[in-house]
Amino acid sequence: MPNIKLTLEYDGTDFVGWQLQENGRSVQGELEKALRQILQQEIRAHGAGRTDSGVHAREQVANFYVAEKIDGGLLLKALNALLPEDVVAFELEEVPDNFHARFSATSRSYEYVVEQRPTAIGRKYCWFNTYAIDRILLEHCAAEVIGIHNFRSFCKTGNDSHDFECSVSVSSWSVEGTRFAYRITANRFLYGMVRALVGTMVEVARGHRPYDEFRRILLANDRGKAGMSAPAQGLFLTKVGY
Amino acid sequence: MPNIKLTLEYDGTDFVGWQLQENGRSVQGELEKALRQILQQEIRAHGAGRTDSGVHAREQVANFYVAEKIDGGLLLKALNALLPEDVVAFELEEVPDNFHARFSATSRSYEYVVEQRPTAIGRKYCWFNTYAIDRILLEHCAAEVIGIHNFRSFCKTGNDSHDFECSVSVSSWSVEGTRFAYRITANRFLYGMVRALVGTMVEVARGHRPYDEFRRILLANDRGKAGMSAPAQGLFLTKVGY
Repeated sequence: MPNIKLTLEYDGTDFVGWQLQENGRSVQGELEKALRQILQQEIRAHGAGRTDSGVHAREQVANFYVAEKIDGGLLLKALNALLPEDVVAFELEEVPDNFHARFSATSRSYEYVVEQRPTAIGRKYCWFNTYAIDRILLEHCAAEVIGIHNFRSFCKTGNDSHDFECSVSVSSWSVEGTRFAYRITANRFLYGMVRALVGTMVEVARGHRPYDEFRRILLANDRGKAGMSAPAQGLFLTKVGY
Repeated sequence: MPNIKLTLEYDGTDFVGWQLQENGRSVQGELEKALRQILQQEIRAHGAGRTDSGVHAREQVANFYVAEKIDGGLLLKALNALLPEDVVAFELEEVPDNFHARFSATSRSYEYVVEQRPTAIGRKYCWFNTYAIDRILLEHCAAEVIGIHNFRSFCKTGNDSHDFECSVSVSSWSVEGTRFAYRITANRFLYGMVRALVGTMVEVARGHRPYDEFRRILLANDRGKAGMSAPAQGLFLTKVGY
């Protein structure tokens, strides 16, 4: 059975997240429905990362097996014709049998956008706040994150993960006018990790926590220690590396 | 009666446009409703430009008269608390009695965005097409528009305008990856003018009309001659000058 790799973008606003759920509209559900309709077979799509409800993806990757050889260009066109307008498929290619969107991935990149000017047009794609944010503190916190750490303090409780170690290669803030953007790349991410990191960094940068505390939280391996979780709508999965 | 100048942004997606209409949700209607509720008086808001249904504004200006002196900062906060999330008020100041958002304006600027890569996240804020667009032809057309011209050929019929002369100071395209952005500034605009200009320029740039025709259309003073109107969702009012 040919194994197909699909790259797609979605607007997370009206989804319960990537993953199929009994109740609610998921990206995986919409994708599998469209594929079933086109290919007339049961399809299970494996995503590289399970984005939460409201989280966007500029580039998500999925793979699925099809019963027989397909014309990739044709399938891509058919998919985009059937998918709802908040999901777009970009690329589709046949890959080796053992390729798995999630397990074969060697890196994921996320971006988180904080906007300090109220906005009507971008309201669903940022966290709007007017805190007095110290940019230097944000950057110091971001630098602490680089390297191999146990990120248990920044992992949502209630998940079934036992391994909390992640290797972070990129972690930095950029500022353009009233817009603060955090970019992070790691081999893997824990559940809720980016939002907890951003929420905690912003608490430090607005003076609600001393700067030293960020390192202490990172070393504590205890989720109770971290700050608030930044809202889902500011988060974008931007790249999956293989 | 104090005269108040208000600067606001809106996402035009779910509006019938700026102007109050009997049926449908207008920006003016939402603004007047919120002001009435706060100030407990009838309010008539005058906008600098009547954006069409689906057209966005990064910066629209309105003015209105209030019965007595107000605390501007307080009114701005109250407004943003009452306005729906697709309208945001930025600035509010008292201006001389004779200031009129529309008649006092000396320039308006618009931006039009064409996106050639399908997008889920930006789908409501651009015109997506995959035409093979010749960038040089776009730029040549844009240059033709600069100066004082009769723009009747690019004015939607059925409006009550008799003066078709506009003085264009800025008219240029910029390209970033798959995104083409047209920026135009003029003392005034005719109904549907930017969308007709963009639609016609794109027809030339994709080879559907010879380049000479653009100048001929501009000189023809006849709306029947221009090309298609580019979709509303790619258009942004970006600045009103006084």
